[in-house]
Amino acid sequence: MSLSQVLNVCPRSAIAGLGIAAASSGTTSTAAARRSVGRISTLLLSSTLSSQDTTRRNMSTSPCAYKQCITLDNINPAIKLMEYAVRGPLVIRAAAIEKELEQGAKKPFKEVIRANIGDCHAMGQEPITFLRQVLGLVSYPPLFEDKSIPEDAKKRARDILSGCKGHSVGSYTDSNGIEIIRKHVAQYIQDRDGGVPSDPNNIILSAGASGGIKVLMSLLRCPIDGKTPGVMIPIPQYPLYSATIAEFEMAQVGYYLDEANKWGLDIAELERSLNEAKKTCAPRILVVINPGNPTGQVLSRDNIENIIKFAHKEKLVLFADEVYQDNVYEQGSKFHSFKKVMMEMGAPYNQMELCSFMSCSKGYMGECGIRGGYAEVVNMCPDVKAMLLKCISAQLCPTTIGQACMDVVVNPPKPGEPSYEQFMKEKNAVLASLKVRAEMVASTFNSIEGFSCNPVQGAMYCFPQIRLPEKAIEAAKKAGQAPDVFYAFQLLEQTGICIVPGSGFGQRPGTYHFRTTILPQPAKLKEMLDMFRAFHEKFLKQYK
Amino acid sequence: MSLSQVLNVCPRSAIAGLGIAAASSGTTSTAAARRSVGRISTLLLSSTLSSQDTTRRNMSTSPCAYKQCITLDNINPAIKLMEYAVRGPLVIRAAAIEKELEQGAKKPFKEVIRANIGDCHAMGQEPITFLRQVLGLVSYPPLFEDKSIPEDAKKRARDILSGCKGHSVGSYTDSNGIEIIRKHVAQYIQDRDGGVPSDPNNIILSAGASGGIKVLMSLLRCPIDGKTPGVMIPIPQYPLYSATIAEFEMAQVGYYLDEANKWGLDIAELERSLNEAKKTCAPRILVVINPGNPTGQVLSRDNIENIIKFAHKEKLVLFADEVYQDNVYEQGSKFHSFKKVMMEMGAPYNQMELCSFMSCSKGYMGECGIRGGYAEVVNMCPDVKAMLLKCISAQLCPTTIGQACMDVVVNPPKPGEPSYEQFMKEKNAVLASLKVRAEMVASTFNSIEGFSCNPVQGAMYCFPQIRLPEKAIEAAKKAGQAPDVFYAFQLLEQTGICIVPGSGFGQRPGTYHFRTTILPQPAKLKEMLDMFRAFHEKFLKQYK
Repeated sequence: MSLSQVLNVCPRSAIAGLGIAAASSGTTSTAAARRSVGRISTLLLSSTLSSQDTTRRNMSTSPCAYKQCITLDNINPAIKLMEYAVRGPLVIRAAAIEKELEQGAKKPFKEVIRANIGDCHAMGQEPITFLRQVLGLVSYPPLFEDKSIPEDAKKRARDILSGCKGHSVGSYTDSNGIEIIRKHVAQYIQDRDGGVPSDPNNIILSAGASGGIKVLMSLLRCPIDGKTPGVMIPIPQYPLYSATIAEFEMAQVGYYLDEANKWGLDIAELERSLNEAKKTCAPRILVVINPGNPTGQVLSRDNIENIIKFAHKEKLVLFADEVYQDNVYEQGSKFHSFKKVMMEMGAPYNQMELCSFMSCSKGYMGECGIRGGYAEVVNMCPDVKAMLLKCISAQLCPTTIGQACMDVVVNPPKPGEPSYEQFMKEKNAVLASLKVRAEMVASTFNSIEGFSCNPVQGAMYCFPQIRLPEKAIEAAKKAGQAPDVFYAFQLLEQTGICIVPGSGFGQRPGTYHFRTTILPQPAKLKEMLDMFRAFHEKFLKQYK
Repeated sequence: MSLSQVLNVCPRSAIAGLGIAAASSGTTSTAAARRSVGRISTLLLSSTLSSQDTTRRNMSTSPCAYKQCITLDNINPAIKLMEYAVRGPLVIRAAAIEKELEQGAKKPFKEVIRANIGDCHAMGQEPITFLRQVLGLVSYPPLFEDKSIPEDAKKRARDILSGCKGHSVGSYTDSNGIEIIRKHVAQYIQDRDGGVPSDPNNIILSAGASGGIKVLMSLLRCPIDGKTPGVMIPIPQYPLYSATIAEFEMAQVGYYLDEANKWGLDIAELERSLNEAKKTCAPRILVVINPGNPTGQVLSRDNIENIIKFAHKEKLVLFADEVYQDNVYEQGSKFHSFKKVMMEMGAPYNQMELCSFMSCSKGYMGECGIRGGYAEVVNMCPDVKAMLLKCISAQLCPTTIGQACMDVVVNPPKPGEPSYEQFMKEKNAVLASLKVRAEMVASTFNSIEGFSCNPVQGAMYCFPQIRLPEKAIEAAKKAGQAPDVFYAFQLLEQTGICIVPGSGFGQRPGTYHFRTTILPQPAKLKEMLDMFRAFHEKFLKQYK
């Protein structure tokens, strides 16, 4: 029995998982992370050992100084494999540099610029006033007496509290969320989709989109004909998917996005990937991220129709990660929800199962820390849905404040209401500024030697390709790092700019990329891009 | 290959899980739940089938009307097994009755009394003013201008915001939580434990206690010598544990609490249970809930010392569920944390691994919906802790408002601060009233024929034993329900009182119990107990 059998993953995914893990961890400068890479390599080696050997290894002495019950050798192997590059070793190093700066260390820069994560408020974006008024009211009801708070905010807060038992956000809610908020979500979806109906009973409120993605993926974790269930994900992908697949011991089935075609989905590539995967696992889920993370593309309606047809033909359950639905910048680009397209295509497509995910963390609101989100689960067999609801009930309920936040996002001030103008002004200002920054980032990168970069049509990221000189690749090898990771560490140490190397998301072998957010405020972003250019020129000179 | 092998659980736990599931679901009056029981019975039957048969069954036609990709036959089998009685069929029926009442249906009662769940605010408990002031401030910072908000609340809010990136609760935090809050938690633990040190790096903030329990249990999900990892839990237990064990396909190892000895832990019973379990699985975790849920006991220091010695001898990792640490009522009872006792016992016990869990949902604050909590992870090998932190990073961070709530709980107003008096008055009023209610519930039940009930020393629940007449047991059999479930449904339909039958928590075969909270406000609680007595007398007459 091989390691992959022990882990109940198809060998392909086990190795792919290790690849990503090794690539993103193999790069750290901290001792702990280096040890963890050692451990992963040991695991990789052990994949050639017999089952008995593996068992014996599990009981071997731990490298830990303590003599404890829990050692690296007897913890959940899936957790050892899992990686999440957005918070990986580069970010750990960035935090350490911040502490060094605080303690007065001298560096060629004054601060760390965290361009590694889509964390809007951390980068200086102001919260939307109306949203925070409602959160303030539900948390601290004496605020209802405050005459400076507009009536429409009070109305929203009153409605939310009326859905809370004992009129308090301190009480548990139904596990799928407060009914009136689920109704508002359904109405929002219906309006967004030009009247295509949405059922509040299909809405599950969750802690960010991640909570919903995780529970729905867990539901589909069942061997089919003795084969490991497979999840098709884009490469490059948002690493929540690879991490969750690893944690659930499912099989990761990557399909490459078409970089030459603005990171679109190529149906022939979906077919190639699926056929390859079918040899070793049973693909069940097709994940599409639109607008794309980390790639920033916005899919055309045509592309979406073809994806739906493909999923139907292959009996795949569609997971549409649509958390960036408000973040569309490029002239001519438009967000089309999978739900709307599927429903408008008519039978048999309008009967397909679809899970669509949304969040309070992105868009114009950027309320990441509040942890609000929802999943819309379309055409799911009622008996299965009952199991899903049972499964989330043990975690009691998503946070009420996150639910309240989602409520405001789906039920914002309407024309004629007192807060409408200010709300629209704030919302539009954020989105307009993001549009400017999206263009600034892409055009700057395209003007740097060795960079090529698709337009940032939507979302909050840019994922340029960089050509690295041979000597830099050799230097990376010597340092025991993947070349893109080597590059990112050099950038961090010399400029304080923290990006995520492409290997954290996946990329075609032999190509190198990185993800940066477009979130630093305009002046800071300009400064960052100037430093980036100067660094790159120096880097090229050094390794020419 | 048997079902238990397919599910990767030891046969004992698979059957135990099914037992609990069947007992608590087999009782419902809703069609959906009845179908689910049918499904569970089918699964039970299939445990005698060969692997090939099982695989074939997985692909068989679903009973669902749709022809969908996802059917009851191809979802995660662990989710099918999982049950969570606190939100089970009785609660679903209670919600339906509430809707019927709203629509004007005539019943022998005016309202449903939800005594099934420890949901304080839902039962009319008022939030603590100081706590909500801080939550209001961090959510809606213009409140800092409000002169009616005391300075100490502003100080707390300022400290929390200083720990948030961009000074906004809308930004992501470190995955283990905001550093300054972890420091406050460590200080709180240290003060609580008479100076025994606590390290902020051992604190993981989580979404309620449940979030922490789940992730730590997941970490230990690793076969040992080819055996399924086992988790020892009290019977009766809080069903989060059985549900999580089922979800993670670990083995449930129940040990009976000693009802004759105020629900204390009997070391001989721990040994019996462990030795029995070792035949089929590898026990790794010992869960102790103190004060007890659903049993309301508060463990003596002596008892805790013996449990620690047992865990050390058997190399078990201690999970101390201490969410009710503020809820101790009985004269002479005192909360002793496992951490303090373990540390004071000296070597080798003070080097043992311990995970202790706390929550904002219970105590005097009862902020269930806010989802704040923490785990303190003591003596964990640093390499393993690094894996734990990596594993939580993909879920980004616990809700900031939940973290802020935890901060207030561990860092309340101090003597001399402007809010101190009001805070103490509110806190003491809640705890004093709970103490009165704890006594009222236990003494009333003990005065009812056929009831016997241990004192409610702590927590928020009472778990009386009821002797049911033979004829009632026969009637239950005819109705296809477990006797305690039959009783609970009769109570609900005739009085509107919603309790949870003992089978949802586990009980010695042939005994019948139920759990009720002590949370209805005093007048309502008296009314409830009067109705309960009248119902029981009628029930006895009917089935004599």
